[in-house]
Amino acid sequence: MSKRRDTLKLGLFLRATGHHVAAWRHPGAQADAGIRIEHYQALARQAEAAGFDTLFLADSVGVRGIDSPVFDRLIAPHLTFEPLTLLAALATVTRRIGLIATASTSYSEPYNLARQFASLDQISGGRIGWNLVTSSDAASAHNFGGSGQAAHADRYARAREFQQVVDKLWDSWEDDALLLDRDAGLFLDRAKRHFTEHRGEHFQVRGPLNVLRSPQGKPVLVQAGASEDGRELAAATAEVVFAAHQSLHDAQAFYRDLKGRAQALGRNPEHLKILPGVTIFTGASEAAAQAKHRELQELVQPEVGRELLSGLLGGVDLSHLSLDAPLPRDLPLSNASRSRQELIQKLADEGLSLRQLYLRLAGARGHWTLVGSAEQVVDQLEAWFQGYGADGFNILPPTYPEGLDDFITFVLPELRRRGLVRQGDYEGRTLREHLGLPYPQHPAARRGQEAVA
Amino acid sequence: MSKRRDTLKLGLFLRATGHHVAAWRHPGAQADAGIRIEHYQALARQAEAAGFDTLFLADSVGVRGIDSPVFDRLIAPHLTFEPLTLLAALATVTRRIGLIATASTSYSEPYNLARQFASLDQISGGRIGWNLVTSSDAASAHNFGGSGQAAHADRYARAREFQQVVDKLWDSWEDDALLLDRDAGLFLDRAKRHFTEHRGEHFQVRGPLNVLRSPQGKPVLVQAGASEDGRELAAATAEVVFAAHQSLHDAQAFYRDLKGRAQALGRNPEHLKILPGVTIFTGASEAAAQAKHRELQELVQPEVGRELLSGLLGGVDLSHLSLDAPLPRDLPLSNASRSRQELIQKLADEGLSLRQLYLRLAGARGHWTLVGSAEQVVDQLEAWFQGYGADGFNILPPTYPEGLDDFITFVLPELRRRGLVRQGDYEGRTLREHLGLPYPQHPAARRGQEAVA
Ligand SMILES: Cc1cc2nc3c(=O)[nH]c(=O)nc-3n(C[C@H](O)[C@H](O)[C@H](O)COP(=O)(O)O)c2cc1C
Ligand SMILES: Cc1cc2nc3c(=O)[nH]c(=O)nc-3n(C[C@H](O)[C@H](O)[C@H](O)COP(=O)(O)O)c2cc1C
Repeated sequence: MSKRRDTLKLGLFLRATGHHVAAWRHPGAQADAGIRIEHYQALARQAEAAGFDTLFLADSVGVRGIDSPVFDRLIAPHLTFEPLTLLAALATVTRRIGLIATASTSYSEPYNLARQFASLDQISGGRIGWNLVTSSDAASAHNFGGSGQAAHADRYARAREFQQVVDKLWDSWEDDALLLDRDAGLFLDRAKRHFTEHRGEHFQVRGPLNVLRSPQGKPVLVQAGASEDGRELAAATAEVVFAAHQSLHDAQAFYRDLKGRAQALGRNPEHLKILPGVTIFTGASEAAAQAKHRELQELVQPEVGRELLSGLLGGVDLSHLSLDAPLPRDLPLSNASRSRQELIQKLADEGLSLRQLYLRLAGARGHWTLVGSAEQVVDQLEAWFQGYGADGFNILPPTYPEGLDDFITFVLPELRRRGLVRQGDYEGRTLREHLGLPYPQHPAARRGQEAVA
Repeated sequence: MSKRRDTLKLGLFLRATGHHVAAWRHPGAQADAGIRIEHYQALARQAEAAGFDTLFLADSVGVRGIDSPVFDRLIAPHLTFEPLTLLAALATVTRRIGLIATASTSYSEPYNLARQFASLDQISGGRIGWNLVTSSDAASAHNFGGSGQAAHADRYARAREFQQVVDKLWDSWEDDALLLDRDAGLFLDRAKRHFTEHRGEHFQVRGPLNVLRSPQGKPVLVQAGASEDGRELAAATAEVVFAAHQSLHDAQAFYRDLKGRAQALGRNPEHLKILPGVTIFTGASEAAAQAKHRELQELVQPEVGRELLSGLLGGVDLSHLSLDAPLPRDLPLSNASRSRQELIQKLADEGLSLRQLYLRLAGARGHWTLVGSAEQVVDQLEAWFQGYGADGFNILPPTYPEGLDDFITFVLPELRRRGLVRQGDYEGRTLREHLGLPYPQHPAARRGQEAVA
């Protein structure tokens, strides 16, 4: 296979004190970073100065782990700002970096969500992305009525229709709808207004949206679902997909599968970027990296590790199991994330004990973890990129700010030296331009061009 | 009556190019100000430098007037940023001024709204207020299902329960819930977590909220309803009430009524501030003020004026009526805002023609309008304040930026000279402190104090 000519895309997954479950106990951490707006703003500025294509904020509409007996030991990242308001606060202190927030289709209305994302896209000058999720955690469901969490398939059915409505709402106004003709007294061109008129199973929405099209046409659609339903939705609609893999082999299989599905649906697979997550421990040498990793692993409380594993398995009770025995092979599957469960089951099949398992997953919660010198780390990243397992990476620093400092100090220069990332300043102004995604022409404009051709 | 010892509070109602319906046609206006974030940020900074206690953003979850035959002539203020994302973007470029956004209880979920406002209160360091409305416009309803707008009483029944849930969610965590004890591995104190456990007619919400209490405890609750239901809700829960009156007599009656209701419910009436809206045309002389007023009135298109009136009447068709004949006395009442309709009916009873009516209302849509020199204007404001018709004012500049410049240049120094507004810098840091509102102690802390006493 010839060398890829595109460069790899870099996302930075923001998360209070960092991604490692013990990050808040690290001596370098500001333990209450989750409610310090200056902390997030400083990270956003730092990421922009380093040239990251985008930031990413996860979300959950409830306190994950609130029923856990150890919630008071692990709650650090779950009491923080709400992502859309936080994104606005980050947009105003940055100028180029993309800004992606997660929002669930299960507990809100398409009009409200379409509107807030469109507004953010205006505020940021076209730098916004929406990570569409269906909320796999049960805690969220209890905050929205008494009927509990909807089944996986039902969540995705709602998500599909939700996304269609949002997309139509974002086309409420053509790009050049504003006339601003003071003399004639005409504010806009009525021919460029489009009612949504959606009547579906879950939603009835008339439109139009009360926000105009933004500089990048509409926000970038991101997805992170890994199930069959999740992949189908991503193949049909997503422009960026976050993934979680532990091996190049798995990454390649997912990459091939998703790009193939997109192509089968008539899409250009290059307009769907796949970014697996990776947690990196690095330093001036391999030994330094190992020491940083060890330091953090030693801060994991056993009761927290057990809980984390239970959470990744969708709430399965592990309290009666010994930490040093292997995980049983016949754990019940839950209604939550299938792919995470399969991953853990696979590791358990290798004979890992509970303690080994939680230590393996503590740092990155199912994401790939690299520990090594810059050269060792970049060898791996390059192999995944050149091997078509990734179009780039979603970087999950184990700690903030240290983990990000280390990535910027050690890994980024090596990526640049090898020509794997873009050399200079941002190429464009919008997130679409950073990622090499096309401008989504308004359907009416497309029809107009076809009529002319 | 002795002179009041408190100072009058000042809010600034932001609205794209201004409050006058023809503002966007004004030569000084940036016609597309509604989508210029720098425009709003500059206004927010200017208002803060001038010492306004708070900004205010109105809202509607649809495009008001979209079915009007002249929507393309009047749509200017209705295609703009969504208020909560905009508020975050204003919070980061200001340091002291309060920030109030409108959000409807009719089309969202209490968990989502409680969360976004709490997040904003964290982002802004305790400067946020929520203007609770029930959405009187029918256009919004069509974006949220096919069943149309709920009846007035049903909207308020939902609003009452919605507000209770939000308030409970804001008490999910006591002020000192964070322990951040790295050595013990304890992030927070589990005794300071409170489930919401709400099971009502409209909502079932378990909680807790995934945002901590903010520097002002919880956002300030604002209301602007004028009906019987609206007043009851305001008397029971609101800390600020926006109002719209045309005469001191009406303002006093409303003021007495609302403070009386609050007192009857066991509240301290001083903890409920009443701010009528006022549009001010002013300048270096009375003649200059009159000229500014005339200039803008002449820009009102007759078809827009007719439409505006129809909108204020809740959509009543006026297209068959002559502009120079009086408004009929027996117009049908709609499901929308009662108080606005009554106001217009009253003016019609005075014999005003359609044209006179719309010109009277064009500037401020039912709000009080003053045209005069600084001294004349302040005489009026002082009379309302000293006469207990107002605790302050919600300023609605007819145009931005000119209308605000004029208020700051001419009116504000005169208010200061007479000791009606605070002299120096902001007294406190939070919106509550600016307005003289008490800190809402957490119920558990209150119980604790009672136990000790
Ligand atoms: C990088 C990454 C970030 C994710 N962020 C969120 C999130 O913020 N909120 C959420 O509910 N799910 C999140 N997920 C979970 C996915 O949306 C999805 O639920 C999960 O991958 C399981 O896939 P499935 O739902 O298709 O079975 C994330 C997944 C990945 C890989
Ligand atoms: C200053 C002011 C601002 C208002 N802002 C809004 C708003 O942004 N959105 C809205 O739906 N209603 C708004 N209203 C309308 C009120 O919420 C309310 O619907 C109206 O006063 C009629 O009262 P009622 O609903 O109790 O009959 C506002 C009213 C005033 C006086």
